[in-house]
Amino acid sequence: MNELKSLIRTIPDFPRKGILFRDITPLIENPEAFKYVIEIFAKNIPLGINKLVAIESRGFIFGGALALKNHMGFIPVRKSGKLPGETTKITYDLEYGTDTLEIHKDVIRKGDRVVLIDDLLATGGTALASCRLIEKCGGRVKKILFLIELDELKGCEKLKGYDVFSLLHF
Amino acid sequence: MNELKSLIRTIPDFPRKGILFRDITPLIENPEAFKYVIEIFAKNIPLGINKLVAIESRGFIFGGALALKNHMGFIPVRKSGKLPGETTKITYDLEYGTDTLEIHKDVIRKGDRVVLIDDLLATGGTALASCRLIEKCGGRVKKILFLIELDELKGCEKLKGYDVFSLLHF
Repeated sequence: MNELKSLIRTIPDFPRKGILFRDITPLIENPEAFKYVIEIFAKNIPLGINKLVAIESRGFIFGGALALKNHMGFIPVRKSGKLPGETTKITYDLEYGTDTLEIHKDVIRKGDRVVLIDDLLATGGTALASCRLIEKCGGRVKKILFLIELDELKGCEKLKGYDVFSLLHF
Repeated sequence: MNELKSLIRTIPDFPRKGILFRDITPLIENPEAFKYVIEIFAKNIPLGINKLVAIESRGFIFGGALALKNHMGFIPVRKSGKLPGETTKITYDLEYGTDTLEIHKDVIRKGDRVVLIDDLLATGGTALASCRLIEKCGGRVKKILFLIELDELKGCEKLKGYDVFSLLHF
């Protein structure tokens, strides 16, 4: 796991001063490491899951691979205005201002058991909003997968009640 | 192939009036169809390719799966300001205004043989700019893969000289 961790590059002051950005690109550029991560994610998906939802846009990289690996359909959660069909929307608070996420209305149905995936858990706002979207459509989020969790930001507390798996902790 | 094509939903007037938007989400939600697409892409990758570059953000879905399938590293081309490391940039013309794409500087080296992937070939501006980025870094684009090509927009002519494979034509 330390070897995997060494493939996460830390870049200071990105996207703004004072932020230590954890850059996943060296890991995903490494075929062995990428494959290993997807295999671990696959092992952490509970039985009976029938939908995979991935969060734009780095979540799409892992979501695409995991959908293939576990033979699941891929469902995107996207920023406002990107999905062309009828959508369910949610607006949530950011540090400054708000953001809106959308999911296609017809893709999650009552009783669906969903795994949600993104690259990084920071404050948990985006993931929680995505859970709410899935639930608004009648689905149940049975697992949330992250490559990285930033422990200090306590996103896990915001996601209390959900089954969260984060592969690497910083 | 007609079965695959029936999984592309056509949405009129998105993102603006007069555009027939080809929506890939019904296809990627279908595990069989998604797997089949990735298998065809994999068969169309020439021998000796050592890098996979995917274009943000729908290209990430296919790129992630194909990287796993063919045991390749995943390299993102992203919109301006998203990549945290040192980047090579290119600005190109859109119908109205310009857009800028970036790739991390250290990820493509002289002599690399690259496959580029995106979901859709329209006018070809984004794909051509991505090829130029890869070439600026010393790489050679040996194949470009698209799920969909919009024949009327003649993107293929703009990509003349490149080996383009598009699975579905509209």
